[in-house]
Amino acid sequence: MKPNGLKLERVGIVAKVHAKEAASVVRTLVKWFGERGIETFVEGSIAKKARGSESFTLDELPRDLSLMLVLGGDGTLLSAARAIGSKQIPILGVNLGSLGFLTDVALKDVYETLESILRGEATIDSRMMLRVELLRKDETVASEIVLNDVVITKGAIARIIEVGVEIDQQFVALIRADGLIASTPTGSTAYSLAAGGPILHPNLDAIILTPICPHTLTYRPVVVAGGAKVELTLRGDSGEVYVTFDGQTSQRMQSGDLVRVRQSRHQVKLVSPPGKNYFQVLRHKLRWAERPRSRRTTTPPKP
Amino acid sequence: MKPNGLKLERVGIVAKVHAKEAASVVRTLVKWFGERGIETFVEGSIAKKARGSESFTLDELPRDLSLMLVLGGDGTLLSAARAIGSKQIPILGVNLGSLGFLTDVALKDVYETLESILRGEATIDSRMMLRVELLRKDETVASEIVLNDVVITKGAIARIIEVGVEIDQQFVALIRADGLIASTPTGSTAYSLAAGGPILHPNLDAIILTPICPHTLTYRPVVVAGGAKVELTLRGDSGEVYVTFDGQTSQRMQSGDLVRVRQSRHQVKLVSPPGKNYFQVLRHKLRWAERPRSRRTTTPPKP
Amino acid sequence: MKPNGLKLERVGIVAKVHAKEAASVVRTLVKWFGERGIETFVEGSIAKKARGSESFTLDELPRDLSLMLVLGGDGTLLSAARAIGSKQIPILGVNLGSLGFLTDVALKDVYETLESILRGEATIDSRMMLRVELLRKDETVASEIVLNDVVITKGAIARIIEVGVEIDQQFVALIRADGLIASTPTGSTAYSLAAGGPILHPNLDAIILTPICPHTLTYRPVVVAGGAKVELTLRGDSGEVYVTFDGQTSQRMQSGDLVRVRQSRHQVKLVSPPGKNYFQVLRHKLRWAERPRSRRTTTPPKP
Amino acid sequence: MKPNGLKLERVGIVAKVHAKEAASVVRTLVKWFGERGIETFVEGSIAKKARGSESFTLDELPRDLSLMLVLGGDGTLLSAARAIGSKQIPILGVNLGSLGFLTDVALKDVYETLESILRGEATIDSRMMLRVELLRKDETVASEIVLNDVVITKGAIARIIEVGVEIDQQFVALIRADGLIASTPTGSTAYSLAAGGPILHPNLDAIILTPICPHTLTYRPVVVAGGAKVELTLRGDSGEVYVTFDGQTSQRMQSGDLVRVRQSRHQVKLVSPPGKNYFQVLRHKLRWAERPRSRRTTTPPKP
Repeated sequence: MKPNGLKLERVGIVAKVHAKEAASVVRTLVKWFGERGIETFVEGSIAKKARGSESFTLDELPRDLSLMLVLGGDGTLLSAARAIGSKQIPILGVNLGSLGFLTDVALKDVYETLESILRGEATIDSRMMLRVELLRKDETVASEIVLNDVVITKGAIARIIEVGVEIDQQFVALIRADGLIASTPTGSTAYSLAAGGPILHPNLDAIILTPICPHTLTYRPVVVAGGAKVELTLRGDSGEVYVTFDGQTSQRMQSGDLVRVRQSRHQVKLVSPPGKNYFQVLRHKLRWAERPRSRRTTTPPKP
Repeated sequence: MKPNGLKLERVGIVAKVHAKEAASVVRTLVKWFGERGIETFVEGSIAKKARGSESFTLDELPRDLSLMLVLGGDGTLLSAARAIGSKQIPILGVNLGSLGFLTDVALKDVYETLESILRGEATIDSRMMLRVELLRKDETVASEIVLNDVVITKGAIARIIEVGVEIDQQFVALIRADGLIASTPTGSTAYSLAAGGPILHPNLDAIILTPICPHTLTYRPVVVAGGAKVELTLRGDSGEVYVTFDGQTSQRMQSGDLVRVRQSRHQVKLVSPPGKNYFQVLRHKLRWAERPRSRRTTTPPKP
Repeated sequence: MKPNGLKLERVGIVAKVHAKEAASVVRTLVKWFGERGIETFVEGSIAKKARGSESFTLDELPRDLSLMLVLGGDGTLLSAARAIGSKQIPILGVNLGSLGFLTDVALKDVYETLESILRGEATIDSRMMLRVELLRKDETVASEIVLNDVVITKGAIARIIEVGVEIDQQFVALIRADGLIASTPTGSTAYSLAAGGPILHPNLDAIILTPICPHTLTYRPVVVAGGAKVELTLRGDSGEVYVTFDGQTSQRMQSGDLVRVRQSRHQVKLVSPPGKNYFQVLRHKLRWAERPRSRRTTTPPKP
Repeated sequence: MKPNGLKLERVGIVAKVHAKEAASVVRTLVKWFGERGIETFVEGSIAKKARGSESFTLDELPRDLSLMLVLGGDGTLLSAARAIGSKQIPILGVNLGSLGFLTDVALKDVYETLESILRGEATIDSRMMLRVELLRKDETVASEIVLNDVVITKGAIARIIEVGVEIDQQFVALIRADGLIASTPTGSTAYSLAAGGPILHPNLDAIILTPICPHTLTYRPVVVAGGAKVELTLRGDSGEVYVTFDGQTSQRMQSGDLVRVRQSRHQVKLVSPPGKNYFQVLRHKLRWAERPRSRRTTTPPKP
């Protein structure tokens, strides 16, 4: 983290359109920014409900946005991050309800956070992303950038898949499992955690390979350097198998397909209010600090 | 286990047809039984390759078989067990290659085992099964008997499913996960183990509920009495979800569908050679006894 | 569970003496029972602080108690259960603060629960116990009854211990680990859970063997029938090793020592208020039902 | 890894003295080096059995050793690494029996490996170490350098310990567990793995914090940057608690004691034969590549 020199001139707003209060929140935000002479651009689907500003689509981002404000859950932020791609637009994630790992600012704190940004007190946290290519017979079938993870996984009916893992051209293992996750440190608290992976501090420069329900009980999550060249080849005849990018888009795989994973040159810039820290969010999300308690009373009812 | 009083008069033979040596093995077996005046019935797909005996299909088992000889892996035996269903035909599982938990007799030991059966020295091991019904709006859509497990699992693209679990009409939890396994003790060393479940001795009378990659980290495998009434309801709008029986047949589920799991009245009778024990197989399959060793030598090459 | 026919005539009271409010709670309880013509016997350590009734020690329980009221955490109840041993005195566990698995009645609900007992509406839940013997050269060195677990564990400095496991005279494995837990279903939510064991419904008749940090990654918790004869032999020269009973008393072990574990003929009778169910407590303790939420507000501060 | 420019002039030899063949192996090695004009220094305990060379103790290493040859298991190498400390002596680990993660050269390959070193073909692999200080009331009670891990762990009788974890002055969690491991990537395949930790490639610059049997089920191994300042404070009154360095030496802790963990400025230099790779050793040690097989035969015995 470093002190930020953000100047808010043009702010993009993306919101999870199904969230009930989203439209009214966006309207109030647009007004708040307007009162401060800041231009707002509202993403299309929510723009219909929250007028009074220019709209845009994630496919065509306005030029030179100084900030992207994302209202929703981590999924909404992942979409926005994918749309931003190589553009260096900082993102402020605001959750509409449950605290997210990426959307860690509560709605009630959004204006205070924006004011701290205006005062130059917010911090910017750079997160590594992965560039993923799906190759079939040496041709690139799909190419994506992910902030959380890329997942190879079997269809519901298939029994097991076989994935050959190579790192820096060295054979690591032939994994027989329900699937395999290649995750960034940011993604370590998402799907990889559910599959038994470790928690990696987001400032680490590393890639996690976490097998999903491996049949060989000695397979364990493996963490390699961020610069490692990870190559995952679908072996055997595994039936229906998919590769999924940040849990958002999927592509069906064929036997022999290669998923090539590299650290992206681009990073996501996450804006945090001053004083926020990663472990605070972690502790809250995983309920580390709390123990269930029952209330006490010593007054008996009369007999 | 109890000393068996098996009299071999009519033996069914099922074999994994893709196994290379299956046909010649079956031919030799048919001859061996014939020399001893025992009738053989060979299952259709392999019967084409191994003539000289009557053939049958798993859908229409011959009456009054005194033994079903299964050659293949655990999957082949699961199919045969499902076909046998309520018929009380004992099964002898013979593996063609890798030791199986159910097919624990090696091919090289098959004749010795058959002779021990003829001498009345083999033991019969009864294994509980589960009767599973899939109900949609109170109508039974599917009804199956499983020896290993019934699995509710998401399609490759779906993110997560929600399954409400009730046991003996008491609400247990709303599981948010990739899926949920209800397993017999026999199935505890199959998919449930890969998902993090415990090993249950097959003579236990119990049902294991093992979540697959649960998002709530405090969900853990839960073991309840064999007589428990387990009801699993698919909640929310989870996209593509399937219920799979013994890893062999699947049925697509709809939101609101109920999977009802009960102990079956019927049991599978597994024939074991005398002296065989469960922990021996377990130790071998999970490689408990072994440690990697490198060879030693103390003679240096000449300079 | 079955409807109880408890007649409260003589009630023993045990309390965790260090709990701040214990003395005043006991005084109020003694008075409450007195007003209903029920004799009370207060365990020694707390009796000094809460006069007005006969006192006793856990070593010498009063004859014919109709109920033992335990105020404290699960540890306090485990002590009381060990003291009761073969005497069939039902126990009502009341927690002073955190909900316990065994002390699942909140202090605020104690009088309501007692009244339901007087009305004959409470239920009694029988829990299996284990009889554990420590044998050295065929001589019994220690003999204990446990409600939760017996644990063989290395001292802080020792690197690893080796325990040979036999079940019903069959060799299971030579476990190389930090330790090994033999647990009842009741104990499945205690130490065994922390070591990676499954949750067993307390009405199951089973013993769980859970290794602690096993060096062989394929060792997994193994569940066997309650009637199994479990024999654990300390092998090798493991340095400082202890066997601990219900986490309360320990005995140092020597190489070659045998820990013999059997189901006890005696059971603990736990009294529950009507309508209480196991999964409710489980859900609460493991926080299954809850998700972290942040509060919402849509009113911005004035610019 | 980088091509090495090792010139073998003075070689130290350390051997696990209890290993049966150690003495004769050392004698042969001393002769082999002598024939090549290379001086040898044999560590004291084995020197008594393998004469004909100068002896030394780990406390007083000879100056300017060009190589330390370690014969034994990983434990023997850890001792040697601790003795070398800040001295930049490369280590060649040769196992006497079981393949080790650190002693990955088999005895039968030792001469071939030494010759590859003489030819300048071996590679040197630098491994990060941790500098650990035990502070009591701001005074340094112990100070150690570890290659694998530092472990805070309870005595056999204590129930649980509480360790406050801070990273870079930020509070992370109050861990209630049997213990806590701070491990290097090299140590990730040692105790941390047994406690459920991930595997980290040894070229990563990171510290792993792995709880041992945590009572809060949502605690998971956490990986932070190698440069992180990790501070572990023993809280509460936990009874007997020890801090152990590389599994070799221990120090009893008192409540309030602080264990401060930093990356050491020094690294261990491990010599590898050309072509050796990390994943090969991993695969072999964890048996990733293998499946149990039974032999086949199709010849029946005569009736």
